[in-house]
Amino acid sequence: MDKYSIALDAMGGDSAPEITVKGAVRAIQKLPVKIFLVGDEVQIAAELAQVRGSYNPDQLEIIHTDQQITMHDHPKATLDLRPRASIALAAKLVGEHKADALVSAGNTGAVILSAAKYINRIPGVRKTALAALYPTHNRQKREELFSLILDVGANIHNTHHDLIHFAYMASTYVNRIKNIEKPTVGLLNVGKEEYKGGALLAKTHKILSELPDINFIGNIEGNELLQGYADVVVTEGLTGNIAIKTAEGMASSAKHLGKRALRHPLYMFGMLMLAGGIRRIKNITDYQEYGGAPVFGFERMVIKCHGRSGPRAIDNAIQLAVRSISQNMTENISSGIRAYEAKYAVNDMDLASDYY
Amino acid sequence: MDKYSIALDAMGGDSAPEITVKGAVRAIQKLPVKIFLVGDEVQIAAELAQVRGSYNPDQLEIIHTDQQITMHDHPKATLDLRPRASIALAAKLVGEHKADALVSAGNTGAVILSAAKYINRIPGVRKTALAALYPTHNRQKREELFSLILDVGANIHNTHHDLIHFAYMASTYVNRIKNIEKPTVGLLNVGKEEYKGGALLAKTHKILSELPDINFIGNIEGNELLQGYADVVVTEGLTGNIAIKTAEGMASSAKHLGKRALRHPLYMFGMLMLAGGIRRIKNITDYQEYGGAPVFGFERMVIKCHGRSGPRAIDNAIQLAVRSISQNMTENISSGIRAYEAKYAVNDMDLASDYY
Repeated sequence: MDKYSIALDAMGGDSAPEITVKGAVRAIQKLPVKIFLVGDEVQIAAELAQVRGSYNPDQLEIIHTDQQITMHDHPKATLDLRPRASIALAAKLVGEHKADALVSAGNTGAVILSAAKYINRIPGVRKTALAALYPTHNRQKREELFSLILDVGANIHNTHHDLIHFAYMASTYVNRIKNIEKPTVGLLNVGKEEYKGGALLAKTHKILSELPDINFIGNIEGNELLQGYADVVVTEGLTGNIAIKTAEGMASSAKHLGKRALRHPLYMFGMLMLAGGIRRIKNITDYQEYGGAPVFGFERMVIKCHGRSGPRAIDNAIQLAVRSISQNMTENISSGIRAYEAKYAVNDMDLASDYY
Repeated sequence: MDKYSIALDAMGGDSAPEITVKGAVRAIQKLPVKIFLVGDEVQIAAELAQVRGSYNPDQLEIIHTDQQITMHDHPKATLDLRPRASIALAAKLVGEHKADALVSAGNTGAVILSAAKYINRIPGVRKTALAALYPTHNRQKREELFSLILDVGANIHNTHHDLIHFAYMASTYVNRIKNIEKPTVGLLNVGKEEYKGGALLAKTHKILSELPDINFIGNIEGNELLQGYADVVVTEGLTGNIAIKTAEGMASSAKHLGKRALRHPLYMFGMLMLAGGIRRIKNITDYQEYGGAPVFGFERMVIKCHGRSGPRAIDNAIQLAVRSISQNMTENISSGIRAYEAKYAVNDMDLASDYY
C-alpha cells in the first residue's frame, strides 16, 4: 500500500495533460506514492498509452472531469462557471483527506481560490501566501543556493501579523526541506534602518526582532535580494510580486543574451567563461530546476508549479510534496503559528485597524 | 551676464568636492551658466587650483560653509544639527530665487528635506517624487532608450492624486527633455487587468484612463519594466524603490560577470558579442551616462545625481538643469497639475481618507 497520496491537477499548465502525466509517471517510478490524476480521462489515458518504461498502474488513479481552467481564464469567474474544474476537484480530494497534498501547474489564482474553498486554513492564519524560490549568490555558503520569497501573489496588502506568519511558515519549510537549522529571515524594505518603510514594516521589524524562534537578520533592500544573505524574504504580496517579476525580467534579458551568443560558435568561449554566472541568473526562469513553490497557510501542502513546467518539474514538485508530508510540514508550521498567536496576536487590540 | 544660475552642493557625493568642482568647470566651459559652489571654501579653492584648461572664473562663485552632511548621516537629525550644511544653503539660494535650479550628488534624504524646507512646492502637489532613469530594450524605437520611473524613494505610500501628479510631472519632463510628443505612461502593478492591485491602483488606473492629456498605456508588470513600452512608469515610493533596486542588483550581477570575462583576453570575443546587451543592462548602474534624475514637485528644478557620480555626470546634470530651465519646465508641470486639480481633485470629497 502507498504511504502517501497526491492530488495532481492533470489539466493545469501550458502543455497539460501531456506534461503532468509524464511527470506523474516519473514520480511513481521512484516513489511509493499514489497519484490522483484529476482531469479528462480520455486525454489522460491517451497520454498514459504513450508512456515508455514500466510503472505500477495501481499507483495512478484517474478522477474524471470534463471541466478545466486555462492559464488565461479569470480565476474567480471561471471557477463559478466550472465548479468541477480539475483544480477544484483536486483541491476537494485534499480537503476531504482522500489525498495528502495538492500539486498544480495551472492558473495561480484558480489554485489559490480552490485550495481556499476546500482545504482548511491553519488556525490563526488569516492570509495564505504564494512563495517563489530564486537562485542567489549564496553568500552564506549553503549547499543549495536558493532563497524563498513570500508573498508574491496571493495578496496585495498584508498586516504585520500576516508578515510574521509568513516568516514562521517559510522558516519551518526551509528548515525541514533544506535541512538548515535556523534559516535567516529578511524583511524586504527600502533601507536598513529599523524605522524605514512606514508603520507596517517598522512594526513588523520590531516584532520579528523580538521573536526567539525566528532568525531575523533585519531589512533586505531590493539590490540585496540576489546576495542570498536571507534564506527567507518576507514581504507583502504587491511588493513581492513586483520584486520577483522585475528580477525575472532582468534574468530573461540575460538569458536572451546568452542564447544569442550561443548561436555563434566563434563566441562560445566567452559564454563558457560567463556560464557560471549567467546560468545562476537565468535559473530564475528555469522552472525545471525546482519543481514548484508552496502556497503556505493550508492544513495540507499545496505546491504550485510554473505554467511552463516540464515533466521534470512536475516530478520534482511531487517529490517535494512527499518530502513535506513525511516531515509533518503543516503540523510543524501550525505549532509555530500557535505559539506566536498565543503570545502576540490574540491580545493585540489594534488588530481591527491594522491596515496601515 | 549669465542667463541662468545653478546652486551646486559642492560637498555632496562620495568624492566631493573634487568631483563636483571638476564637473562644474566642465559645464561652464561650454555653457554661459553661473554656478554657485556651496561648501568649504578652502577645499573648493584647492580643487579649483588643480583644474587644467581655461574657464571664466566669473561664472563660479563659492558660497562658504563649514557644515556638510555625509552619505551615511541620518538626513533629518543631521539637518537639525547642521542647519548651514552645504545642501541646505544650496537649497536656500534656490528658494530665495538667487539660483534657478539645485543640483546635488549628496545624501538623498537631505536633498529632499532641504528642498522641501526652502523651495516652494507646485500648488496642488502634496508629495514630491524622486525619479530614476533606467535603460530599456526600447520597444518603441525611441532615439533614447531610457525610461523614467517615479517615485523611487521620496515616499513610502501615496494617494491616487499623488500618482496622477507623478504622471503629469514626468510626462511633461520627458516631453520637454526627450522631445517625445506624447510620452507613454504605465502604472506598475501585479497584472494587466484594470481591477488589479487593490483599491488604490484600480482607482489610479481608472482616472489615468480618462485623462486626455496623459498617454496612459495601462498596467506594467515588473518583468515588463525593461521592455521600454512605457516612457514613464508611475508607482508608490515603496514599490518603486524595491523595483529599481532589484533591477540594480541584477544589473550589478551582470556587470561583475562582464568584468570577470574582460580580465581574460582569450574570452573577449564572447564579450564583444554580448557587449550590446550587457552594456544595456549594466548601464543601469552607470551613473556617468545620464547625470541625474529630477526630484519632482518643486517650483524650481532639483536634480539629484548618484553619490558615485563622476565629473561627467555632474556636468550632465548641470546641462539637464539648464535645459529644463530654458524649457520652462516647472511652469509647464505646474499648469498640467493645475488643470487636473481643477477638474478632479478639488471636489474630491474622499481626499482625507485616501490612504487605501
